[in-house]
This record gives sequence, structure tokens and C-alpha cells, in this order.
Amino acid sequence: MRPGTLLYAQSGGVTAVINATASAVIQEARARGVKVLAARSGILGALREDLIDTSREPISAIRALAHTPGGAFGSCRYKLKSLKQDAARYDRLLQVLQAHGVRWFLYNGGNDSADTALKVSELARERGVELSCIGVPKTIDNDLAVTDTCPGFGSAAKYTAVSVREAALDVAAMAETSTRVFIYEAMGRHAGWLAAAGGLAGTGPDEAPQVILLPERAYDEAAFLAKVSAVVEQVGYCVVVASEGIATADGTFVADAGGSKDSFGHTQLGGVAAHLAGRVKDQLGLKVHWTVPDYLQRSARHIASRTDWEQAQAVGKAAVRLALAGHNGVMPVIVRSSDKPYRWKIESAPLAKIANHEKKMPASFIRKDGFGITEKARAYLQPLIKGEAPLPYGSDGLPKYVTLKNVAVKKKLEPFEA
Amino acid sequence: MRPGTLLYAQSGGVTAVINATASAVIQEARARGVKVLAARSGILGALREDLIDTSREPISAIRALAHTPGGAFGSCRYKLKSLKQDAARYDRLLQVLQAHGVRWFLYNGGNDSADTALKVSELARERGVELSCIGVPKTIDNDLAVTDTCPGFGSAAKYTAVSVREAALDVAAMAETSTRVFIYEAMGRHAGWLAAAGGLAGTGPDEAPQVILLPERAYDEAAFLAKVSAVVEQVGYCVVVASEGIATADGTFVADAGGSKDSFGHTQLGGVAAHLAGRVKDQLGLKVHWTVPDYLQRSARHIASRTDWEQAQAVGKAAVRLALAGHNGVMPVIVRSSDKPYRWKIESAPLAKIANHEKKMPASFIRKDGFGITEKARAYLQPLIKGEAPLPYGSDGLPKYVTLKNVAVKKKLEPFEA
Repeated sequence: MRPGTLLYAQSGGVTAVINATASAVIQEARARGVKVLAARSGILGALREDLIDTSREPISAIRALAHTPGGAFGSCRYKLKSLKQDAARYDRLLQVLQAHGVRWFLYNGGNDSADTALKVSELARERGVELSCIGVPKTIDNDLAVTDTCPGFGSAAKYTAVSVREAALDVAAMAETSTRVFIYEAMGRHAGWLAAAGGLAGTGPDEAPQVILLPERAYDEAAFLAKVSAVVEQVGYCVVVASEGIATADGTFVADAGGSKDSFGHTQLGGVAAHLAGRVKDQLGLKVHWTVPDYLQRSARHIASRTDWEQAQAVGKAAVRLALAGHNGVMPVIVRSSDKPYRWKIESAPLAKIANHEKKMPASFIRKDGFGITEKARAYLQPLIKGEAPLPYGSDGLPKYVTLKNVAVKKKLEPFEA
Repeated sequence: MRPGTLLYAQSGGVTAVINATASAVIQEARARGVKVLAARSGILGALREDLIDTSREPISAIRALAHTPGGAFGSCRYKLKSLKQDAARYDRLLQVLQAHGVRWFLYNGGNDSADTALKVSELARERGVELSCIGVPKTIDNDLAVTDTCPGFGSAAKYTAVSVREAALDVAAMAETSTRVFIYEAMGRHAGWLAAAGGLAGTGPDEAPQVILLPERAYDEAAFLAKVSAVVEQVGYCVVVASEGIATADGTFVADAGGSKDSFGHTQLGGVAAHLAGRVKDQLGLKVHWTVPDYLQRSARHIASRTDWEQAQAVGKAAVRLALAGHNGVMPVIVRSSDKPYRWKIESAPLAKIANHEKKMPASFIRKDGFGITEKARAYLQPLIKGEAPLPYGSDGLPKYVTLKNVAVKKKLEPFEA
């Protein structure tokens, strides 16, 4: 094996297990004598030559990274445009990689990152630069094409199912004299995967959540209110899981419907749950509570799925192997061999098949009435939340999360305004 | 030991561990040959003679109750007034207790329930009825007098501290190109205990949460915005934990600042995070995200505190012993013997010292600038979130929570409209 340097960068919204991928990447590379640099704040750090030398971290810290949520080196929301439009940035990126002897570039993210990784791989090929560019999957949205699931999703799905089940027990106990309708707002702007995972909290039709609102179906207020009312009549209470991305038939996001000013003219931030709660209260006159877990659902390492955690590490390890074997413009993906028992393996897929695609929930996963998930969806989702990922706790009662030193690599180039 | 029947009822908002108390009550009573009935939907069931025979549940179910959140027999928000104003209801209650041979009544709740238990104990004494009435502490608000802490609080506190730490790692990773200010809304209408527990997520002054807003201090918008701005300037981002009950100096709830009232014309709490987020956006122009965990924070058995869980069981066990020893009008309370290591024991206190009192955070627990907690608060809070409570998971990836059969006891009296 010739010596060389690998650059790893995180991109987009972080997850409960993206650092598990990072940990696997670094451990696998170290075992093969490869030095790993990490870009600070994702691709921004790569452009600014703001790089971190991970060899300065003890192995104990790298191992602890595997159970630490967030993004250890920083991530960013920053999309590179086409090779033509962003020519200067792509040039700079290659310059930085070459200046630091980077032969392998691993970009850990979702759709946009797959697109960037693809472009970089094409550019390197065009220019005859010796570079392997590998996309590494990650997103709680679960909307990447080809791969069976996306690391990060299973843990957010488990958080959702467990939280909905627990809150439903609370609501059921109190419904007679207190809250009748409880609304849980799940992340997912375009695809309803996480809201659907909330459906795992119950099994029978009377079990919570009795209503799931998915962006794959147009939101119809009258039908929603009628359904909630019928459920409360029959069960005594109703638990609703609503995707943040639901929209009416004309494409208007429900979250925007509530956007308003209060009596002082101040911005009144709302969102889907607050809006739906207001409608239930006004139209049905029922006591309603609502929750917006927001970042909690994507950072809750304490309730991570073991399956997800193992897959996050597996794609990291596979990415290093693919890179070192000289592959370029590919992504390690998860392939499902069977549902029961759930069996999966890692294969390699071309980034061209993944970049800029968006995997929505298939129609066969959505119940006919549009308010729930089918057995087919359950068979797909259930294995992804299976198992509990180990997590050490300190004597202070908190998980032992690690903070890396993140020692900067000395710069060799002129500054660049990314 | 003479045979007899014990009636157990849950009251007010449920917690992650109130069923652990129920489990301990039933197990302790069974061990002493005492039959345990439970009131369905709390005191309402006692008034309606809607009672559950817990002897119909196998011991495995009673044991599983110890790790199941919610309220297994149902709870309610229903406050009995004075003995004079609610004479008919108190009479009915004694009738029901006598009809079913109840000699021991355990009422598991917060301030209001302690008050009801006290009144029932006084009435029984006046009437010469052989009845031991015992209050059993429970509330995530941690606002009961005399007891060191309230079962339910430690678990909600642990949920808060862990969630804030996890979300803070997320925000820190993304702040440069995404969210700069994150606001977490904690329950607590009058006392800031839960918001204060969020402070355990960090240690140094730069560690999240950098700002805590407590109802014990008047909310000053200008000071809040200046503080957030300064923290963002220095740290790069700011995590805020805000109690739902914060109010301005004139007593106006911040949640009510926009002028929203509920359907009864009452102040609608729960809008603090959304309001603060709007102000940060409008006034500071920073990208902001916010979370309202709502019921999730009080039902999250999956992240319960072991200390809290053990205390919840200890007060249940002690309540049975106090009852059977013939005590009346008392509550088992937690007494702290030392901070480090945390040592506690159960003692008995008169309900008269607890009913209708409200324990707020002492001034010595609040930092001078009003935006954080002191070392004294930390020394008090830390032990309460210590340890993880065991929880079995199923092969479906979800905690194995139990649903009881809740077999009704045959009624002996005329119906009563509670």
C-alpha cells in the first residue's frame, strides 16, 4: 500500500450516528496506515483549507466518536453549483486536495453531497488528477435513491416511534379530563418517512398514532378534522403524527398557513403542529397539546437504533475500502436481502444514480384512507429501528460524549473566500 | 394482620415513573396479604365507584408496570373543594370506600392531591371511620414542600439535560451556515426546576445552554436579546432553555404576549419558545430553531433517572407501610442526608405541611445575572438524574410497556354523577 492522505467531510444536517461513520472511517484508515484529515464545517473547510489532523486524536476519542451525536468536525449547508458556474470553487478544491496530498476524498451527506462528490470525481478524471471521490450516505430524511435506507434515519425513526408510544400512554391516561388530541410534528419536507415511522408506535387501528399526515398525500382539512373527531368518539383520544412538509392540493405548505404577526406585529412562528392544533381547538372544541421535537429527533443518540448505528459504521468502513481500491464516483449503499430476519450487506453504486434523485414513500406504503401506513411499510420500517446501540453514561447521569481537540493542519495556500 | 382492602388512585399529570410507584404499592400490599383496588381515572373513579381489581393482574404485569410510563389506571385533573363546598362528594367518597371495605386510601399526586388526601383523612377522623389516608408524592414540577424532590422530576430533568446536550452538539456543528440560536421550552408554570435541570447539560459559561429563563425572575426582553447576541458573538451560537411560565415584571406571561387565550379565556401556555424565536429573528436577524417537547418530557421512560425510579418505588412501598401501621394524613417524603455521595431515606411528614404549599427555586440557585444556575443548584440537581433505570426492549425495537387488563370491580352502590 502506498502512503497517502484521506480527506473526510460531513455535509448537511447532522444525525445521531454520522459521527459513528466518521469513527469507522478513521479507524479503518488508521488500520491501513492512511492519514485522515477532516474538513472543518464540511466543504467550507475544504475550500478554505481549514483542515483538521485526526491523527492528533487518541484512539479512545475516535472510539467514543462512535457514540457521540452531532457533527464532530462541523457540517454545513452549502451546495456547489455546476462545474461551470462554480469553476473557481472546484479548482480551489482540487488545489487544496493536491496541496495536502489527498488521494481519497470521502463526502458524507445526502442528495446534494452526492451531487458534489460526483462532480468532483468527474473533474478529477477530466484533469487526470489521481483522486478517488466517494460519497457516504447520511440523512434522517431517508430519501436517497438506491440504498435500502440512509444512516441516521433508523435512529430518528426509533426516536419517533418510542416518543409517540410514550406520549400516547400519557394522553390515554388523562384524556377524560385533559388533552383529547395530541399532535406530533415530524421532520421531512418532501418525504414522509419519519412520520411514517411514528406508525410503528402502534399496531391495531385503535392504537396511537391513529392519524398520520404524510407529504405524499394532499392535506384536506375537512377530512382530517372528521377523522380526528371520529377517532376521539371511538377511542376517547387521538394521537396525530404530522410531517412538517404536508401541503394542500394546490401545493401550499400547511406550515406557511399559520405564518402570521401577533397583535404587536411581531413575527409569530408557527409550524404544522401549532396550526393543526389551532384548527382542532377552533373547529372541534377539543383540548389539544402538540410537540415539535425539532433537532431533538435527529440528535437523540441516547435512543439510537442498533441497526442504524451498525450501518453507519459499515458504510464508513466500506467507503475507505472502496477509495483505497481506487473506485471513484461511487457510494457504498445498503442492500436488503431479506425482511424477516432483516439481512443486509454493503454494495457499491454509482453516484450518478443517486445524486439529485429523491426517494419518496411508495404509494403501497400508505393506507388507502391516507391516514396511516400499510403492512408493507411496517415490514420495511420495523427492522430499521431494531436493537439498542451501546452508550456509556457518566456518574453525572449524562451520556459520555466526546469533544475532539480538532487540531488544525498548517495552511499551505493563499486564503480563499468560500 | 387483619385482612382488608387498599385503594390506590393516581392524580394530575402523569410521569415516567408514577407507575413504578403503583407497582411498588401493589407488590408491597400483596406481600402483606392486602387486596389492592385502583380507581379508574383517579378520584373520578373513586366517586363513580369505577374501581379496578388489581389482583386480577399476574405478578409479571405488576412488575412490568415498574418500567411503563403514563398512568396505568388513568389519572385526572379534578380538584375537590372544601369539605363544606363539596360535602356531597366527600360523603360519596366515604360511602364508596366503606362499601368496598377500604381501610387504606393512597392518593398519588401533587399539591392538589395532598390537599384532597388531607381533607379525606380529617373527615374520616371526624366521622370515626376506620380509614388511613396517605398522600404519595408525584410531580415533574418538583414543587412539593418538605420532600427533597418529587418522584417524576428526576426523570424529566434527565430527559431535559440529555436532550439539551444532544441538541447543542447538533447546533454547534451547523452554526456557521445554519441555526445560530436554539430555544428549548421546558414545562413548569410557576417554578423553574425543569428549566434549571437543563443547565446540567453544560458546565463552563460557554457551554450550552448559555441562557436559562426561569419564572422566578422577571423576563426582560432587551436584556435577553442582548445576552443572546453577546453569546452568539463569543461562542458562535446560543442555546436557550426557557420555562413555559416566564413572565414580565408586570406579571404578563410571555406565552401570552401575543394575546392568545384558550377556549375558556384562560392564558394559553406553551407558546414561549415560538415567541422568543420570533423576537430573536426579528430583532437580531439570526436563524433560529425551537423545540417544544411537551408531553415527551414527562413520559420519556426510556431515559428515566435510576435515582428517580428508585425513589418512586420507595415512596410507594413506604406509603403501604405507613397505611398499614395506621398512620393517617401523612405522606412519605424523601430526605437528603448528603449531596456527595447522594444519600437519601424515606420519612413521614404531615400532609398539612405539604398541601397547598408550592416550593419555588431558592434565590441561591439562580445566577446573579438571572440567566443560569449556581453551583448550589447543581449540587442539588445532579444526583437526581444519576443512573439509568433498566428497561427491556422487544425484538421490534420498542420498549416492552405493559397494558393492564384493568378488570372492573362489581358496583354495589347507586350511580353518582361526579
